[in-house]
Amino acid sequence: MELKISQMDQITENELQKALANVAVVLVEPKYPENIGAAARVAMNCGISRLLVVRQEEPDREKMLKMATHKAADLIDRLECYENLETALADFAVVVGTTARQGRQRRPPNTPRVTMGQVVPLLAENRTALMFGPEHRGLTNDDLKFCRFTSTIPTADFASLNLAQAVGIHCYELYHQLLYSQSGATAFAPKQATTFELEGMYGHLEEVLRKIEFLKNTNHLQDDYWLNTIRKFLGRIGLQSREVKIIRGFCRQFLWYDQQRGK
Amino acid sequence: MELKISQMDQITENELQKALANVAVVLVEPKYPENIGAAARVAMNCGISRLLVVRQEEPDREKMLKMATHKAADLIDRLECYENLETALADFAVVVGTTARQGRQRRPPNTPRVTMGQVVPLLAENRTALMFGPEHRGLTNDDLKFCRFTSTIPTADFASLNLAQAVGIHCYELYHQLLYSQSGATAFAPKQATTFELEGMYGHLEEVLRKIEFLKNTNHLQDDYWLNTIRKFLGRIGLQSREVKIIRGFCRQFLWYDQQRGK
Repeated sequence: MELKISQMDQITENELQKALANVAVVLVEPKYPENIGAAARVAMNCGISRLLVVRQEEPDREKMLKMATHKAADLIDRLECYENLETALADFAVVVGTTARQGRQRRPPNTPRVTMGQVVPLLAENRTALMFGPEHRGLTNDDLKFCRFTSTIPTADFASLNLAQAVGIHCYELYHQLLYSQSGATAFAPKQATTFELEGMYGHLEEVLRKIEFLKNTNHLQDDYWLNTIRKFLGRIGLQSREVKIIRGFCRQFLWYDQQRGK
Repeated sequence: MELKISQMDQITENELQKALANVAVVLVEPKYPENIGAAARVAMNCGISRLLVVRQEEPDREKMLKMATHKAADLIDRLECYENLETALADFAVVVGTTARQGRQRRPPNTPRVTMGQVVPLLAENRTALMFGPEHRGLTNDDLKFCRFTSTIPTADFASLNLAQAVGIHCYELYHQLLYSQSGATAFAPKQATTFELEGMYGHLEEVLRKIEFLKNTNHLQDDYWLNTIRKFLGRIGLQSREVKIIRGFCRQFLWYDQQRGK
């Protein structure tokens, strides 16, 4: 087959805008409003125009604006505030969680470069969240269970990155890889199930597993361990909406069958 | 020849430390001491332990420390202050100047990724400066004349990166590429001439060019244009110390010959 040169062209402006419109930065419990402002500024520099915050209180507008500067004020005006992470992520199909380097792990396998290489081809068809934890402790395991991808910035022994710096490096990687990708590279991205669909499926699966006493209700730690293991391998597959429906169909059928037998 | 697998191993800890010890961040006329502190913090995260500032006044220590946090306080204590850029750069052989996206240039050819790909192989044997201009205007053409490399972060139409973010993205690129490079990749880097040696050579060349009236002393703008053109093509070569000596030897010989003839 003849290779058409035009297919090798760089991503078009339309493709770029479509992909970027699907990306949001999600800050979980950020302590300092200044960091929200700084994150807004660097996100806008990379063409990302949605910023979500999960936080009990609305952050102080003036403190955010000080770091956002007037150029990113618009993004602060459109800031989306949620009290609950699951609700915030409901519409997203691709969730990337960022974690700090652990202990002596000098070369994390999932650097922003590697992770964004997997995420960029999915952007065109999937709402994508880049998620960052609070300044003092990062994301918890409970936050990370929503993530299909994780990303770790490689750092020297001294490791204490500012929140907005971590946002900046991830936005830079995503934007750089997208901008220099080829036209069509993101066009046929499979449409993934959203967090809302996935959480419904996990709830359904849990119901079945309790029914068959795979989960015992007597040891919550062990139950959580199994549930997280299931999340991890199902998460890796990158389930599509119709696949989620098939799995839920199976759960529903099992629960119906079990009820019939009990009669 | 048999390929030894051990030669393909990743860069060793010793090679990494040796390369990083040659790197410095140079901030030209930074306005806000807080930005110096934030730059110190992100530089240390990437294993970079020299920070130079070119500034008329010593920056306020408390304001720097506030953003550096106690973890990068050591780098603030060792901050090197210079009043003059040429003096600050004298010992450096590789100088990278960072510039903002110009106008509608959507895809700069020299992104941090591309530039660091050229710089990393030189690190082992050459003191290397990553240079950043002031917050409100960036580096001037006069600052950029010292640079063998330039680097531009790709940004969306909205372009107003915070100084410390620009430092962070460049340090991340350098550290990432170095950390994942192969052992030996930086071992045989040619030793380049320093800024001090190069500036001596350019001064000598200028003297010759004035003598032969290639430079006319009547039109300073035009003289500067020619001098910058010469800087640009000689800069691209990556001259080594002994090559600089050869060029200066030629200049010296010409000036001697000219003097003899005049007698």
